[in-house]
Amino acid sequence: MLYEISEKAIQLENQGKRIIKFNLGDPNLPTSPEIIEAAYEAMKQGKTRYSSAAGEKKLREELAKIHNVSADNVVVTNGSKWAVFSLMFLLLKRGENVVVPSPHWTSYELAAKRVGAEIRFLRRDLDSEWKVDISKLENLVDKNTRLVILNSPNNPTSKVIDEKTFGEIVQIANEGGATVLSDEVYSDISFVETKSILDFGTDNILVNGFSKTFAMTGWRIGYVIVERELAQKMIKLNQITTTCVPGFIQYAALKGLEFRKRIADEIREQFRLRADLACSILSKTKMRFSRPDAPFYLFPKVDGLDSERFSLNLLDRGVAIAPGTAFGDYREHFRIALSVPEKDIEEGLEKLCEALP
Amino acid sequence: MLYEISEKAIQLENQGKRIIKFNLGDPNLPTSPEIIEAAYEAMKQGKTRYSSAAGEKKLREELAKIHNVSADNVVVTNGSKWAVFSLMFLLLKRGENVVVPSPHWTSYELAAKRVGAEIRFLRRDLDSEWKVDISKLENLVDKNTRLVILNSPNNPTSKVIDEKTFGEIVQIANEGGATVLSDEVYSDISFVETKSILDFGTDNILVNGFSKTFAMTGWRIGYVIVERELAQKMIKLNQITTTCVPGFIQYAALKGLEFRKRIADEIREQFRLRADLACSILSKTKMRFSRPDAPFYLFPKVDGLDSERFSLNLLDRGVAIAPGTAFGDYREHFRIALSVPEKDIEEGLEKLCEALP
Repeated sequence: MLYEISEKAIQLENQGKRIIKFNLGDPNLPTSPEIIEAAYEAMKQGKTRYSSAAGEKKLREELAKIHNVSADNVVVTNGSKWAVFSLMFLLLKRGENVVVPSPHWTSYELAAKRVGAEIRFLRRDLDSEWKVDISKLENLVDKNTRLVILNSPNNPTSKVIDEKTFGEIVQIANEGGATVLSDEVYSDISFVETKSILDFGTDNILVNGFSKTFAMTGWRIGYVIVERELAQKMIKLNQITTTCVPGFIQYAALKGLEFRKRIADEIREQFRLRADLACSILSKTKMRFSRPDAPFYLFPKVDGLDSERFSLNLLDRGVAIAPGTAFGDYREHFRIALSVPEKDIEEGLEKLCEALP
Repeated sequence: MLYEISEKAIQLENQGKRIIKFNLGDPNLPTSPEIIEAAYEAMKQGKTRYSSAAGEKKLREELAKIHNVSADNVVVTNGSKWAVFSLMFLLLKRGENVVVPSPHWTSYELAAKRVGAEIRFLRRDLDSEWKVDISKLENLVDKNTRLVILNSPNNPTSKVIDEKTFGEIVQIANEGGATVLSDEVYSDISFVETKSILDFGTDNILVNGFSKTFAMTGWRIGYVIVERELAQKMIKLNQITTTCVPGFIQYAALKGLEFRKRIADEIREQFRLRADLACSILSKTKMRFSRPDAPFYLFPKVDGLDSERFSLNLLDRGVAIAPGTAFGDYREHFRIALSVPEKDIEEGLEKLCEALP
């Protein structure tokens, strides 16, 4: 229902209606001028022709340096979502399963189902601060488990998995013959320290993107760090599907990496203010929630709420949110993405509170 | 082997070697400044955030106007190749087959195999000027045929299917329960008049792209015209894979449409000169070939040639071509893409002639 709300919100906007969009993890911040100028320069220099299906050499080398791997382990992808989909498409056979701690990003579930795999959810709850229960994980992983997907910081809870738990998950997955796919797109802008899958060796998969750290959501550029053989498979799949990320976009991303710390710091601070503001508003209501460890989301709970009906009603009042059911079996929750300026956060949350049943 | 040659050519260039690249349908022409400026303006105006998975409304409307359909029938895709792959992914079930007149673009074959479908080739030959033999088609289409793929003008032969034959193919496919997927990416710059699948009703599928007409190969933007239900399925698949074509690229493409005739005329004339030059050089050799009806390719034959070995040897001499085996069972043929300036065409063809066994 996440995408239905999104498309409906766009339709309403096209009809001239004003919508406060809490529904997408799409910061309202502009992409940095340096990045835009770099794209423009690259276009003028003719980086408008086919690029490598693996990614531009310079960009792969720079990412390899950041992650302390070889450039052969890096594949540039048309967004981190394409990385996730293509990995599932390549790795999952019918009868195999994927284990995902829930609540979870909608696309993992839709992609796994689309490629015909079984998806198993490891339920987490607000009452235990969204922690992974390791014994539950042990029960879910079996000989047909091919992937365990981690997403820390998490969408939609914005919680981070602690080092000990992260290590235990990797161990259980790998000992059971499964690979961990770690989607770390929110890591660089996390409010707290995070662990990376690469801290636990190089047998697993890192998925990352430029969208969140660099306010480049619409540019569609991400990357993976994987072992060479899998990298080659991904490159071959790119060749017959998306071909490449536009070269000028790759050079823009490369420029972003130069200013990585500054840009990430700016976005982090901006979202820390927003999170503080939103938490202070919500804490005066009957909503229950966990304070976010990272941008961009809050995932509050209202006992007895039907969040799907609530989301649709709220859209008619000019506020778009995502119902909790988009992230698993969480009907009483909904996701608020703080992707709008502070004054819209105030106005939107006020309307939201008024609309609560 | 097409993509192996392509990646190897890029590697050699990265090592500082000069390669005359006849291997890719990637014109050396720069994208028009108007298009680049439009992309830059759109970036500065914030078209850097998520766009619709269906495509920007204005672009869909403009394409709908050009093709005399409704905007609901238009889906903007991350290149025409993604359109082809995603259509195969959505439409083909195991046990079903795709019929493709051969020689054919490599990606049709690789994509069909990747999604687990059977692919049946309708052989065409130089000696009959690459014409489709309708009785052969009737023998190939059966109750399990889901798609018949047409590509007129054709890659690699640059030949156009005449109106009568086109109509007969559509009739046989549709009467047999199959849909025609017509990839018309070379149509707007064809030297001769071409028919579109839309001239035969709206029950079939048009795939088109901006790459060839607008010298925008690396921008990765294409589109399809399909019935609404299929459009919705493609949009849903975009949502969980590529998300969208970057908004600023869609606005650049929209600007291109304003200058469509002028840009297409320029590219057509440029390639007509190149085709004339190449034909005049090749006609003095033992190579046999058919004069192209459209950019960008020649597909000559040398009796007894092993074009794979020849292509690899030629790469060592600084000239990249694509062996005929990349386009079907055509070992004695190879494809020359005239995607380099005239003086490089002369130099490259000279080296090629010297290297002939």
